[in-house]
Amino acid sequence: MSVTQHPSAQSDETAKPNTTTAPSGRIVISVDAMGGDRGPATVVAGLARSARKNPDIDFILHGPQDELERLVARRRNLAERVTIRDASDVVTMHDKPSQVVRQGKQTSMWSALESVRGGEAKICVSCGNTGALMALSMLRLRKLPGVNRPAIAVLWPSRNPQGFNVMLDVGADIRADEKDLLQYALMGASYARNGLHLARPRVGLLNVGTEEHKGRAELKLAHELIGKAAEAASFDFVGFVEGGDIPGDVCDVVVTDGFTGNIALKTGEGTASLIGDLLKEAFQYSPLSRVAALLALTSLRRLKKRIDPRRVNGGVFLGLNGPVVKSHGSADATGVSAAIKLAYQLAESGFQDKIAARVATAVSLAQDAAERGTGTE
Amino acid sequence: MSVTQHPSAQSDETAKPNTTTAPSGRIVISVDAMGGDRGPATVVAGLARSARKNPDIDFILHGPQDELERLVARRRNLAERVTIRDASDVVTMHDKPSQVVRQGKQTSMWSALESVRGGEAKICVSCGNTGALMALSMLRLRKLPGVNRPAIAVLWPSRNPQGFNVMLDVGADIRADEKDLLQYALMGASYARNGLHLARPRVGLLNVGTEEHKGRAELKLAHELIGKAAEAASFDFVGFVEGGDIPGDVCDVVVTDGFTGNIALKTGEGTASLIGDLLKEAFQYSPLSRVAALLALTSLRRLKKRIDPRRVNGGVFLGLNGPVVKSHGSADATGVSAAIKLAYQLAESGFQDKIAARVATAVSLAQDAAERGTGTE
Repeated sequence: MSVTQHPSAQSDETAKPNTTTAPSGRIVISVDAMGGDRGPATVVAGLARSARKNPDIDFILHGPQDELERLVARRRNLAERVTIRDASDVVTMHDKPSQVVRQGKQTSMWSALESVRGGEAKICVSCGNTGALMALSMLRLRKLPGVNRPAIAVLWPSRNPQGFNVMLDVGADIRADEKDLLQYALMGASYARNGLHLARPRVGLLNVGTEEHKGRAELKLAHELIGKAAEAASFDFVGFVEGGDIPGDVCDVVVTDGFTGNIALKTGEGTASLIGDLLKEAFQYSPLSRVAALLALTSLRRLKKRIDPRRVNGGVFLGLNGPVVKSHGSADATGVSAAIKLAYQLAESGFQDKIAARVATAVSLAQDAAERGTGTE
Repeated sequence: MSVTQHPSAQSDETAKPNTTTAPSGRIVISVDAMGGDRGPATVVAGLARSARKNPDIDFILHGPQDELERLVARRRNLAERVTIRDASDVVTMHDKPSQVVRQGKQTSMWSALESVRGGEAKICVSCGNTGALMALSMLRLRKLPGVNRPAIAVLWPSRNPQGFNVMLDVGADIRADEKDLLQYALMGASYARNGLHLARPRVGLLNVGTEEHKGRAELKLAHELIGKAAEAASFDFVGFVEGGDIPGDVCDVVVTDGFTGNIALKTGEGTASLIGDLLKEAFQYSPLSRVAALLALTSLRRLKKRIDPRRVNGGVFLGLNGPVVKSHGSADATGVSAAIKLAYQLAESGFQDKIAARVATAVSLAQDAAERGTGTE
């Protein structure tokens, strides 16, 4: 009844610069203040930063009323733009999703999702426990018709002109069959159009080789399904891609199951972090190298900014009735602000309506095909 | 009959510094001169480099006799230490493994494996097509008794004191069940003992989270099997590890299936390569940063050396009657020389006998357990 459904979503999805504004002129974002590693003060600091940069955003902030009122009052620019919703409980990083689903009604996370469910906010942002957030999102927002498994999509620094590639699923579900992978391709292409402004994203399917005979059975089937869907869904399918193409430039969207995607994401992050630390060590090695580090400071800062995970903070949950942005649990104010910026951009582009329409079209096309007896099954 | 089997292998495997020499005093390495991207001249250059550094190595070199004779004659230090075996055909990077197995008898790759099979050489090194090399190795060397799926193990730059972790399988097979993963743990621990001189390696099982309830069914079963085998096989089992731990310091050996391992390997390589290129760009950005680059040259070179993939060149095929080192197809002379050094180190430590004994012990322990009715099945 009160779910933010969009039955009238018929608009064609095209890439356009992020200049138009929603009719109301203001975007309301629901923010879970609790559950991140650094506590609500960091989240409120991130809010203040976003509020300064984006005068169009209003916030609904969820957590213990007294504490949040105190934190918000300290920020001059927030008082008028933040509504606080009292929630006494917190989902911790150690809570099991199944437990949160049963006993989490009083948590700030649950409350934050309710604001999207009730249509008060366009999108939800949380730094909390990923598994619990996905379980609660599925319970309260429900899956989009036609989506079997929702996915988590991330932006990954890449050699492409837009600077980032989309990868999904990075861990919503550890399994995906060929139909799920097709849905990921459709949702990922939609995200690339709205999040990266690419009119015709190139989609690749992650595998251990680029030859068509390689890989697991479901990958060969998915290769066929995605290839057939590409034209109608306005993306290019480049076929199989390899791990090295995730930060590469042969495609803009990398489709994989949540097990593989999660391992790849964390391997990439771990490798980048190791190299960063070794680089620091190298520059502290000798007096000469310390001078060099000083001279190179601006260049190194630019590099760091380019690959700083805080600047691309936010996994987006796709395939639900209402979008959810999962910020890194350890995000600082810069990270929280980046997650809010991403949420704003998606809300403002009407992403939710577009992805719902895209998935619905794919479902009806598949049904038509099945009725005509030309389905792939 | 002529397979290099080691029925007498009873020696306990302990870490010891790489100072002892095999009784004969000399180690013979069989090298496939063809199939790499840079041709036989690069392979011979790598041989010359290794020969200078390791006076104990002799080579059997496989490829077109005339060409190899000319290349070897140019190197003063090689003539007496290289035996050439004529092989007219070459396995290319595009040949399908199944085709090479049927029609590859005249290839240098086949010939190189025959020298190990016949007992003339201790170990084989090839820069050629990985799939074909694994298929031919399985055909000609055969799997060790008790091994269902051989694995490819690589060394990965890490935060550990030894500088590297072992990861396997990185692509011998796209599937692995719990028993295969147990074998990988045993073989990986053995490799870490002999390749990295770790008396008691710590083994981790790659998953999407460290909690015991997470992940696919075969991973939970493998968790149990590996935990039970750890004590008898003299390694510590740290349980589940995540992608970020592959370059980390919580374990020395990362066990995973060949699909996931291949994606992780290539994602890590791709990420490192992107960061390297961005770093170069950053240092070329302004006159000041170019000066900084000059001052930091030594430090940057040291960093590069630390993570240079050429210096840890060589995937090792484990689980066969005779070890095989797969060098990167694009390896230059430094890379070929690193692969030969690795092969020498493994041959010299008696690695093949030890891993065979280790796997055989595990098989008989499992049989005993099954007979006593306490097996895990």
